[in-house]
Amino acid sequence: MRSAELIELWRGGQRESLHCGDAVVCDSKGVVEAWGRSGRIVFPRSSCKMIQALPLIESGAADAAGLTDRQLALACASHSGARMHVEAVGDWLHVLGLGEADLRCGCHMPQDRDENRRLTCSDEAPCQLHNNCSGKHAGFLTLNRHLGGGPDYVDPDHPVQQAVKAAFEEVTAEVSPGYGIDGCSAPNWSCSLAGLGRAMAAFADPRDDLRGRAMRRLVDAMRTHPEMVAGEGRACTVLMRAMDGRAAAKTGAEAVFVAILPEQGLGVALKVADGGTRAVEAAITALLVHLGVLAENHPAVGRLLTDPLRNCRGLVTGEMRTAPGFPA
Amino acid sequence: MRSAELIELWRGGQRESLHCGDAVVCDSKGVVEAWGRSGRIVFPRSSCKMIQALPLIESGAADAAGLTDRQLALACASHSGARMHVEAVGDWLHVLGLGEADLRCGCHMPQDRDENRRLTCSDEAPCQLHNNCSGKHAGFLTLNRHLGGGPDYVDPDHPVQQAVKAAFEEVTAEVSPGYGIDGCSAPNWSCSLAGLGRAMAAFADPRDDLRGRAMRRLVDAMRTHPEMVAGEGRACTVLMRAMDGRAAAKTGAEAVFVAILPEQGLGVALKVADGGTRAVEAAITALLVHLGVLAENHPAVGRLLTDPLRNCRGLVTGEMRTAPGFPA
Repeated sequence: MRSAELIELWRGGQRESLHCGDAVVCDSKGVVEAWGRSGRIVFPRSSCKMIQALPLIESGAADAAGLTDRQLALACASHSGARMHVEAVGDWLHVLGLGEADLRCGCHMPQDRDENRRLTCSDEAPCQLHNNCSGKHAGFLTLNRHLGGGPDYVDPDHPVQQAVKAAFEEVTAEVSPGYGIDGCSAPNWSCSLAGLGRAMAAFADPRDDLRGRAMRRLVDAMRTHPEMVAGEGRACTVLMRAMDGRAAAKTGAEAVFVAILPEQGLGVALKVADGGTRAVEAAITALLVHLGVLAENHPAVGRLLTDPLRNCRGLVTGEMRTAPGFPA
Repeated sequence: MRSAELIELWRGGQRESLHCGDAVVCDSKGVVEAWGRSGRIVFPRSSCKMIQALPLIESGAADAAGLTDRQLALACASHSGARMHVEAVGDWLHVLGLGEADLRCGCHMPQDRDENRRLTCSDEAPCQLHNNCSGKHAGFLTLNRHLGGGPDYVDPDHPVQQAVKAAFEEVTAEVSPGYGIDGCSAPNWSCSLAGLGRAMAAFADPRDDLRGRAMRRLVDAMRTHPEMVAGEGRACTVLMRAMDGRAAAKTGAEAVFVAILPEQGLGVALKVADGGTRAVEAAITALLVHLGVLAENHPAVGRLLTDPLRNCRGLVTGEMRTAPGFPA
C-alpha cells in the first residue's frame, strides 16, 4: 500500500507537480473513509495541540488560573506572532507571575506581516513570545505551576510532558512508537494516522465526562476564536471562519492537518508525504467540502484550492486540482 | 514505472517526510544512469535559461551588443535581486537605449535580504529589474533588437520565442509537447527529463561549431560568475563555488535542477515531483558528490544535505537522508 495521489499542479495543459499523502475520516467507532495508508506513522506536530492542552484543563490548572476561552484557543494555536498574540501571551505569563524568560520555545521571526516588518525595520530581534507555539507553552507553564514541576518543562520526563503523553496515548488509543523534538523544543509523540483521526473523532463527539468536557471546551474555544489559532490570512483561521464555526481545523508542520466536525461526529487527519504546505491546505479544503461543512463556492475554497494560479503580472499560469479519486 | 524515492526527512528515529522524483545522468549518446522515470515530461522552468540564451549568441546579437561573460551569466540567472543584479540589468538596458519599462517580466520582491529589507522599510515597491528573470529578459531584448521584432517579446509567436523554441527542440532532440506560461510571463517549453539531460550533456561536451561555441561560452560564463547566476547563500551559487568551476548548476521552479559537467562530458537533470526546494537542492548535492565533482566533506554538502536539522534553540531535531538506492 502506498500513499495516494492527492493534489496536482497543472501548467499549460500538462501536470507539472504532484503531491501524495494519506488521509482518514473517522467516527467514534474508527475509520470510515481513507486514502492511502491509514496505518502510516505520523508526527502530528502542532496539529495535536488540542490534545496537548487536555491535561491543562483536566488537572484543574486552567480553572485555577482563570483561563478564558481566548487563552485556551491560544494554547491550541500556531499563531502568527501578531501584536495581538504576543500581547495575549505576555499578559497571560504576567498574571502567572512569570515572564518571557520562563518560556522554553525559542525565538523566530513572526509570520504576521506587520510585526515582521516592525521588527525587521527597527532591527529588533524577535522574542520567545513571537514563537508560534508560545500559547501552548503558556499552557504548559500554567499546568506546571499546578503540578509543581521544575523549570525545564519541555524535558520528555517532566511531569507536564508525561501528562501530555498519557493523554495522547489515551485519545489515540495507541502506545506511541516514540517522540521527536519539535520546532518549539517540546517532545512530539508519534501515532498512526488512524489514531490521530480517531482522537479527532473523540473531540467531535465527546463523552459526558471530565475528558469529554475538556474536549468540548477546547473545540468551542478554537471555533469561537479562529484568529487566535493562527492569524489573518492563515489557512486555519480562514477555514474556520469560512465554516462559520461548524468545524475546528488545525495544521501542523510537515503538512499535517486535522479537522473536528461536531455536527457529524467526525474527525479528519491528513498528512502530505512531502511536507508541502500548499498541498495540505488544498487537500483539507477539498475534504471539508467533501464532508459538507464548507461551501464549495466560498472564496476560501477558491483561494486555497480552485482559483487559477497567476504570476506577478496577473497572467494565469496554471491551476491546482485534486487528483482523480481524491476526495471522491 | 513510478518516481523514485529520493530524499527523506527523519525525526526522533522515524521517517517523517519523503520526497519522490526522477533523475537522469546523460552523456552525448544518451542516458547513462537514471532514477524513476527518465521519460517523464517536465517544464524545465528556469533550469533551461542557458538553452534560452543560445539564440542570443548564435544570432550575433550578443557580440553586436558587446555583452560580457558577466552579462551572459546574468542571462542564464535566477538572481536574488541584490543591488549588484539590479544595477547590472539596469546598466545593460541603458546601453541598449532601453529601460525597465521595456521589460515584460513583472515585479516581485527580491530574495536578497538586504535589498528586500531596504524596499520593505522604505515602502518602496520592487521594479521589474528585481525580477529574478530580468537578466534573461535583458537577453531577450538584446536578441529582439537584433531581430527587429515588436515590443511584446514574450508572446509565444514572437520571433524571439520562436528562436528559443527552435533551439530548445534541437538541443533536447524532441518535439516539445507544448508550453506553459512561466512566472516571468515567457513561454516555457516542456520536454522529457531525458531530453533535458541530453541537452545538458551537449553543453558539457560541445561540438566545435557555432552552437557548440555558444554552449561553451555560456557554461564558462556561469562557472566564472556564480554570484550572478543566483546570489549569496543560494544553492546554485554555493554549489558552483564549492565545485570550484568544475561544473555549472542551475535550478528551476517546481524543483528542477540541472548540472553540466565538462570534465566528464556529463549532463544531469532532476525533478522532485512535489516541487519541494529543500529536496531538489539536497538531491542535486547528492548527485554531484556521486559523480565526483563535489567533495562530500565540503561545507556546502553539509548545509544542503548532511548537517543535522536544528530548531530555533539550536537543538538537533532530525536530519535529511538520501533514500536507499539514491544515488547509489
